[in-house]
Amino acid sequence: MQRIAIDMDEVMADFVPKHLALFNRDFNENITIEDLKGKKLREYRPHLKMEIRNYITEPTFFRDLAVIKDSQEVIKDLSKQYEVFITTAAMEYPTSFTAKYEWLKEHFGFLDDMNFVFCGDKSIIKADYLIDDHTRHFARFSGQGILFTAPHNVNETGYVRVNNWQEVKNYFLK
Amino acid sequence: MQRIAIDMDEVMADFVPKHLALFNRDFNENITIEDLKGKKLREYRPHLKMEIRNYITEPTFFRDLAVIKDSQEVIKDLSKQYEVFITTAAMEYPTSFTAKYEWLKEHFGFLDDMNFVFCGDKSIIKADYLIDDHTRHFARFSGQGILFTAPHNVNETGYVRVNNWQEVKNYFLK
Repeated sequence: MQRIAIDMDEVMADFVPKHLALFNRDFNENITIEDLKGKKLREYRPHLKMEIRNYITEPTFFRDLAVIKDSQEVIKDLSKQYEVFITTAAMEYPTSFTAKYEWLKEHFGFLDDMNFVFCGDKSIIKADYLIDDHTRHFARFSGQGILFTAPHNVNETGYVRVNNWQEVKNYFLK
Repeated sequence: MQRIAIDMDEVMADFVPKHLALFNRDFNENITIEDLKGKKLREYRPHLKMEIRNYITEPTFFRDLAVIKDSQEVIKDLSKQYEVFITTAAMEYPTSFTAKYEWLKEHFGFLDDMNFVFCGDKSIIKADYLIDDHTRHFARFSGQGILFTAPHNVNETGYVRVNNWQEVKNYFLK
């Protein structure tokens, strides 16, 4: 059985809208997702890099992120024909472990938690496919990287790209 | 550069003495490490399986485990010639994430935390070697499994075995 590794943030969990809403509220800004095309918020407002990071290091930040459209249904379908592992770079935000675990149990309770992986450098992941919004994880990945579209990566080329979970479904199940 | 994945409990962190001391104290027992040769405590006292587990699900249980002799020195040496990843089956005890992370930062702060992996099923680990006290993790591991001696595994045969960190050093660095 082939194995698919799937990233959480901006692939399963809708990270940007919450982050942006908190930032706009606290700094009286009106930055939109459109503004963030091709960049991260910390690159858009570099002088506030630390403040932008502070939201994410708050232990509950990841607990109530919205589920990205169709990810539950498609991952459920994928898990019937593939081994599915969730591989998130949680070591970048060590305060997030519990929230991320609970979020996965709440929204993806049909997956075995033995298939959850909290890591940093994803070159440790042995899988046939990796669906991720960060191309840096593909550099040393031995399988097929699949770039899931997120605002920050829209200008990156040279990767297999999927724009949403229906396209993931088409890629793997059609 | 070749990669070595290293388990935490009973390989780097001395799990059994603390667990046994708490159990002996609370249940008026005098079970020794010698008694646990070839078995886990939960197999030795099966009617107390839940109580035995409860110690480990306590969030701080893993925070103050002793460091296994010579592991710091040898892992430091290994990390000069190999990529070292710490791969622990933390998903079995999701309450342990923070304690395990802090323990690693305290005692193995010379390692990059991007090389820490909290997982369940270790078949997801891509490495050339896996040093672990549980043979079950070797079954689907594509590299060389190296069994680190722990009381529960002393009777297992058919594996490359190391009895202590000096033997790990001899295996990799001699």
